[in-house]
Amino acid sequence: MEINTLTSLKDKWIVFINDMQNQICKGLETEDGKAVFISDKWERPGGGGGDTRVIANGAVFEKGGVNTSVVYGEVTNLMRSQLKIEGSKWFACGLSLVMHPINPYVPTVHANWRYFELYDKEGSIIDRWFGGGADLTPYYLFEEDARHFHQTLKEGIDPFGKELYFAYKKNSDEYFSNTHRNNEMRGIGGVFYDYLRPKDEQDAEKLFRFQQANSHAFLKSYLPIVSKRKNNSYSEREIEWQEIRRGRYVEFNLIHDRGTIFGLKTNGRTESILMSLPPRVRWAYNYQPEVGSEEEKLLQFCLHPHDWI
Amino acid sequence: MEINTLTSLKDKWIVFINDMQNQICKGLETEDGKAVFISDKWERPGGGGGDTRVIANGAVFEKGGVNTSVVYGEVTNLMRSQLKIEGSKWFACGLSLVMHPINPYVPTVHANWRYFELYDKEGSIIDRWFGGGADLTPYYLFEEDARHFHQTLKEGIDPFGKELYFAYKKNSDEYFSNTHRNNEMRGIGGVFYDYLRPKDEQDAEKLFRFQQANSHAFLKSYLPIVSKRKNNSYSEREIEWQEIRRGRYVEFNLIHDRGTIFGLKTNGRTESILMSLPPRVRWAYNYQPEVGSEEEKLLQFCLHPHDWI
Repeated sequence: MEINTLTSLKDKWIVFINDMQNQICKGLETEDGKAVFISDKWERPGGGGGDTRVIANGAVFEKGGVNTSVVYGEVTNLMRSQLKIEGSKWFACGLSLVMHPINPYVPTVHANWRYFELYDKEGSIIDRWFGGGADLTPYYLFEEDARHFHQTLKEGIDPFGKELYFAYKKNSDEYFSNTHRNNEMRGIGGVFYDYLRPKDEQDAEKLFRFQQANSHAFLKSYLPIVSKRKNNSYSEREIEWQEIRRGRYVEFNLIHDRGTIFGLKTNGRTESILMSLPPRVRWAYNYQPEVGSEEEKLLQFCLHPHDWI
Repeated sequence: MEINTLTSLKDKWIVFINDMQNQICKGLETEDGKAVFISDKWERPGGGGGDTRVIANGAVFEKGGVNTSVVYGEVTNLMRSQLKIEGSKWFACGLSLVMHPINPYVPTVHANWRYFELYDKEGSIIDRWFGGGADLTPYYLFEEDARHFHQTLKEGIDPFGKELYFAYKKNSDEYFSNTHRNNEMRGIGGVFYDYLRPKDEQDAEKLFRFQQANSHAFLKSYLPIVSKRKNNSYSEREIEWQEIRRGRYVEFNLIHDRGTIFGLKTNGRTESILMSLPPRVRWAYNYQPEVGSEEEKLLQFCLHPHDWI
């Protein structure tokens, strides 16, 4: 389907998201070279459904998912109180991905782009917004990789405003933070934005192109890092550290991530939501990396936001 | 210190809890035969502190903790809104334990006994209550073990009222439930009770003895099961299932457990709270045990509460 023949932003967004899912899955599969994504399509009882695409036991990726969903329904009291939204009906469509590589030298990555519409009783749009972002969770810190990731995201955003990357990078640092661990970040951040509301139709088109630019930047920001590190040799020591850090990933997602918690408490599709969790994870009491080690270096970079540009 | 020479319930409870911590650690160490508990004493900035005792890499227990804490402070707005409590100052003292065995045929166990006091501005007690319970999380179901666990807890409680076990067993079934997974229980339950408020001093003494009876039942309910199963042979298959089920344990604790969430959001001591998490954990997309397998049998028993008496 040609996007430009469609009239509503909503319809164009659905086509775009489905196309992006195919592109991203293909790019990741090619990088993996062994495993392929399996599609698990589902329907939502209250309206809509999704296409959960999962990959497991690849040459590079141990576990991951690139999911799309197009869902809609009545605004519930829970949504009114927790999401502070008004209106009668809602629509949401987005793509959400998390990839957990086997090799501890290859970072975990997460990205999400979404669009939301709210309607009054007559079905007229009363509110709409875009949200999204991408963030990187390395187990070992290569500063050049961190710079590449942030620089590439910035280049996608820059045409829309030179100040935007810095604002959305700050959001990301603040959001992906384990407040119960002295604000230790889940990784080294990226960009994160929400409630981007178009002022008019022209602005809506611009935000649509902004979302396209962000999602097109994704593979360029991540795949070169995977390529460069996927053949690094590692031992039990690096695996143990990877599993400990993955524990922090689980803690963030289950304790703090608004989307995860809201999804699980409102009867979302549990398996699609929890595809974000890593395959092997470890917890040890009061685990501390050796002073001066590469593990401690990573931890130091997670303890305070860092300027990567 | 002789408990009976102390006058306040609070002081007697503190002595009792510390003594119980020693007894339980000793019983578990003897069963393990290799590892010993390490004591990590800590102070709470707002008042009080605790003794976190952890064990790791034993012959039987892979990871576990038997923690006590005696904490107090000012009632905060967060406590008023989330815990619905009134008053000016509070005091809490309790023991909380979680043991994760290596062998997938030995169940994980959790128990907790606590006492809470609330004071007005003048320091007079305006409210006080006991809470607690114990519950079992097997990876493979031996019905005789489940019956032994529940029966032993019931025998501890029965002298205080023949109906109590059934009420507290029902609480446990309802509480330890992963509502985001169709109410699948974390394990096979046990007993759970909270807000047991004494009517008068005589009743307070009775509730104190009730807590003593419950905690004395703990080792008797659990150790014989450990003894019986700790030398069972197992393979990778059982380990994989154990790790998958441990994932559900993590989900319950981080998404639903009131104590964990409240502790983490109110600046509790993170490492002491999260000592409950298992050492090795696994997540796989939409994991389903084979129909008719021992793994599926366990799952079936977790899907619906079962009468073990």
